[in-house]
Amino acid sequence: MKTLTHVDERGEEPRMVDVSHKNITERIAHAQGRVVFPEDVAQTLSDAGFMTKKGAVLTVAQIAGVMGVKATSQLIPLCHPLMLNGCKVEITMQGNEAVIDCRVSCQGKTGVEMEALTGVSVAALTLYDMCKALSHDIVIRDIRLIGKAGGKRDFQRAGV
Amino acid sequence: MKTLTHVDERGEEPRMVDVSHKNITERIAHAQGRVVFPEDVAQTLSDAGFMTKKGAVLTVAQIAGVMGVKATSQLIPLCHPLMLNGCKVEITMQGNEAVIDCRVSCQGKTGVEMEALTGVSVAALTLYDMCKALSHDIVIRDIRLIGKAGGKRDFQRAGV
Amino acid sequence: MKTLTHVDERGEEPRMVDVSHKNITERIAHAQGRVVFPEDVAQTLSDAGFMTKKGAVLTVAQIAGVMGVKATSQLIPLCHPLMLNGCKVEITMQGNEAVIDCRVSCQGKTGVEMEALTGVSVAALTLYDMCKALSHDIVIRDIRLIGKAGGKRDFQRAGV
Amino acid sequence: MKTLTHVDERGEEPRMVDVSHKNITERIAHAQGRVVFPEDVAQTLSDAGFMTKKGAVLTVAQIAGVMGVKATSQLIPLCHPLMLNGCKVEITMQGNEAVIDCRVSCQGKTGVEMEALTGVSVAALTLYDMCKALSHDIVIRDIRLIGKAGGKRDFQRAGV
Amino acid sequence: MKTLTHVDERGEEPRMVDVSHKNITERIAHAQGRVVFPEDVAQTLSDAGFMTKKGAVLTVAQIAGVMGVKATSQLIPLCHPLMLNGCKVEITMQGNEAVIDCRVSCQGKTGVEMEALTGVSVAALTLYDMCKALSHDIVIRDIRLIGKAGGKRDFQRAGV
Amino acid sequence: MKTLTHVDERGEEPRMVDVSHKNITERIAHAQGRVVFPEDVAQTLSDAGFMTKKGAVLTVAQIAGVMGVKATSQLIPLCHPLMLNGCKVEITMQGNEAVIDCRVSCQGKTGVEMEALTGVSVAALTLYDMCKALSHDIVIRDIRLIGKAGGKRDFQRAGV
Repeated sequence: MKTLTHVDERGEEPRMVDVSHKNITERIAHAQGRVVFPEDVAQTLSDAGFMTKKGAVLTVAQIAGVMGVKATSQLIPLCHPLMLNGCKVEITMQGNEAVIDCRVSCQGKTGVEMEALTGVSVAALTLYDMCKALSHDIVIRDIRLIGKAGGKRDFQRAGV
Repeated sequence: MKTLTHVDERGEEPRMVDVSHKNITERIAHAQGRVVFPEDVAQTLSDAGFMTKKGAVLTVAQIAGVMGVKATSQLIPLCHPLMLNGCKVEITMQGNEAVIDCRVSCQGKTGVEMEALTGVSVAALTLYDMCKALSHDIVIRDIRLIGKAGGKRDFQRAGV
Repeated sequence: MKTLTHVDERGEEPRMVDVSHKNITERIAHAQGRVVFPEDVAQTLSDAGFMTKKGAVLTVAQIAGVMGVKATSQLIPLCHPLMLNGCKVEITMQGNEAVIDCRVSCQGKTGVEMEALTGVSVAALTLYDMCKALSHDIVIRDIRLIGKAGGKRDFQRAGV
Repeated sequence: MKTLTHVDERGEEPRMVDVSHKNITERIAHAQGRVVFPEDVAQTLSDAGFMTKKGAVLTVAQIAGVMGVKATSQLIPLCHPLMLNGCKVEITMQGNEAVIDCRVSCQGKTGVEMEALTGVSVAALTLYDMCKALSHDIVIRDIRLIGKAGGKRDFQRAGV
Repeated sequence: MKTLTHVDERGEEPRMVDVSHKNITERIAHAQGRVVFPEDVAQTLSDAGFMTKKGAVLTVAQIAGVMGVKATSQLIPLCHPLMLNGCKVEITMQGNEAVIDCRVSCQGKTGVEMEALTGVSVAALTLYDMCKALSHDIVIRDIRLIGKAGGKRDFQRAGV
Repeated sequence: MKTLTHVDERGEEPRMVDVSHKNITERIAHAQGRVVFPEDVAQTLSDAGFMTKKGAVLTVAQIAGVMGVKATSQLIPLCHPLMLNGCKVEITMQGNEAVIDCRVSCQGKTGVEMEALTGVSVAALTLYDMCKALSHDIVIRDIRLIGKAGGKRDFQRAGV
């Protein structure tokens, strides 16, 4: 049966899960999210070469995403601090949406889902910040895990 | 016409917008987002009193959200650092969704939308982290601005 | 003879001790401290269900303690940054005192005493902060090491 | 009657107290704590000129204390971030005890007690860290508020 | 006569200078530094469009510089934390050198020289990091103040 | 042929280099830089015993340098976070220049050049900060790598 690993036996006290007994393995995770712009905003961005021609704003969000990945254990209270082998944040425009993919790899005792999800979130917030003067209707959506490997069971979301 | 305030005249170099000329006003912002759990996960959480009886896990996410609000200018590259007057993160269960509301107030020259949106994001990631052992299908959705006041124009989303 | 490991041969220049030659072992540490409340404050807290019924405030302090453990090497200048296997902060009321126990485990070349002591300190400060409106006479006391294992010599304080 | 300002009306949800309505005033706070060394350790430190002759280790602890003051709002979940006018950490040996005094001043809407108490705590932890190779029996004691001014009521502890 | 403001009357104890009595004014500072590349490295960078065509690497360094500006008071022990009005990091290639200019503005009681100098330093380190695989002979040079205004006396370096 | 490791195949997107395939080795790096004071400033500092007699200010810069080393991966966007075995910052006066040497060691998959260079930079900025009231003409110069070992090829600069 499924149990809540961060809540101890008495069910009340949060704790950082003890991973002393776990093996160190090569772990990877891939998370994805999207920033949905109103159509006229997406058009303004596109006209300004925001996304494809100069790339600057996308780069800011990518860099913020990578730094967000590294800040994960300082943001999420019960996350373990860990070393990283690599990290990549990609952003592609699909219509009026920016799709953010973050892939993280590490050699450690715990998975890197939270790092990948945090990277997506911080990149999304940075895109929002850089475009917020254009609209109050930008929405960050569908931040979720796409795949992971190296833990007890590998996982890969179908059709992505 | 709408312009991209973070990209300078030449359209290439990101910068922190200069707010020297702006007045210091009382500013508030309200952002919202949701964490959608698969139904059996929501049931397990509910059965465990996770949400309503002991409150512990919600409290962890709330605290993470408040600390995330305070970390905003360190996470979002072009955000101004600012003082805060107050900050509140509320989480309520609606069916199998956790709805996160973050309200931030400040006396300053720039708005606090990014702080409110970051608070929602970090609280959502923390909820995800604490429940991720239960499912790979938890999704963070619909992080958006609900209202703001104190800047050039007040904004309040209808029907929320 | 005992020597001061952080001061170099000339006795003047602080440095981070070089642990290159040390083995990686499983290390644990347990530290404890207490927050002493005036009796009427302890009573008010108790009446408010602060400690036992809703648990919220204790949870805030616990979470702050865990995050403090993770911030140790950023706070203590000559501490080594390290990975953690686990961390737990427990708070129990004994009369008008809150007793804070912090246990930390790690696989590394250096001990985790400072992490455990920092966790206790930050949890204690957080308790203080949440109750400071009630009195100026709250005192943080007796922060000390209770036990450690995995280094050159294990240690366990008697009678605790 | 005394109330718990960080717990909201329902008594369950922690929040950062809203200080929007408060005036900006000149605020100061003074906190104190002590690090008690076993006598032979205090002697070794003294013989090494640790405390009086070269001052290096004391300086490390002072600097850590000042940086701890600046980190307060990142460590204590519900503390407001604030600007500082000044900060001073002094350490004096009294027998086998190091007495740490931290004074903080600020122009703001909230007091700086937590900043002063955090400065004392981080300085104390740093002293502990630098001497921990000498003994497991060093104890951090009696961290408390000595005085404050600029808020609703000034406070000065008698006889200190 | 010139005096050392960070060392107190006894000349031994570092402290954060008390600025309680100072007025809040509009302050700006401009600092500059350069990263000198071996000629073949500069050529490789140029051929790769590193600097002029796609701009990505320059953008990473600019963003790092802006975030470094915001981290100043956490890096420099006796710096006051402060709010910022604006911040801009510009990088231009002059022959085989990258010239970094950082301009910072703030409304406060202390100058922003250290913020501008830290922005230059972090941008320079980031350029170094991104190119270090090409050579061990990259050098960071001539980080200095170019101008400042808003304090006791304005300053502007001639011929820059 | 030399290639830019932080820019991906398409030459546009920055990423944290993947080191999954690299071996964990003992790595050391040594960086150096200098702070050049105007002669009268150097004389004032010397007369005040700033450098040699009490050592306090040098100690502040050394401590800042060590803490800067530990903050490297938070400052430099594409740097890997890593554990450290040891770190030492030395500052010696040569005429009117302060020469800063930073040596860092680590057991890991990536080198520690950036850590050593960041330690030098933060120590230099701190020296600047503590002396800036004396002159606007202090300059930070010649921050560069002196040696490294443990990676693909060892390196040692001649004549240093």
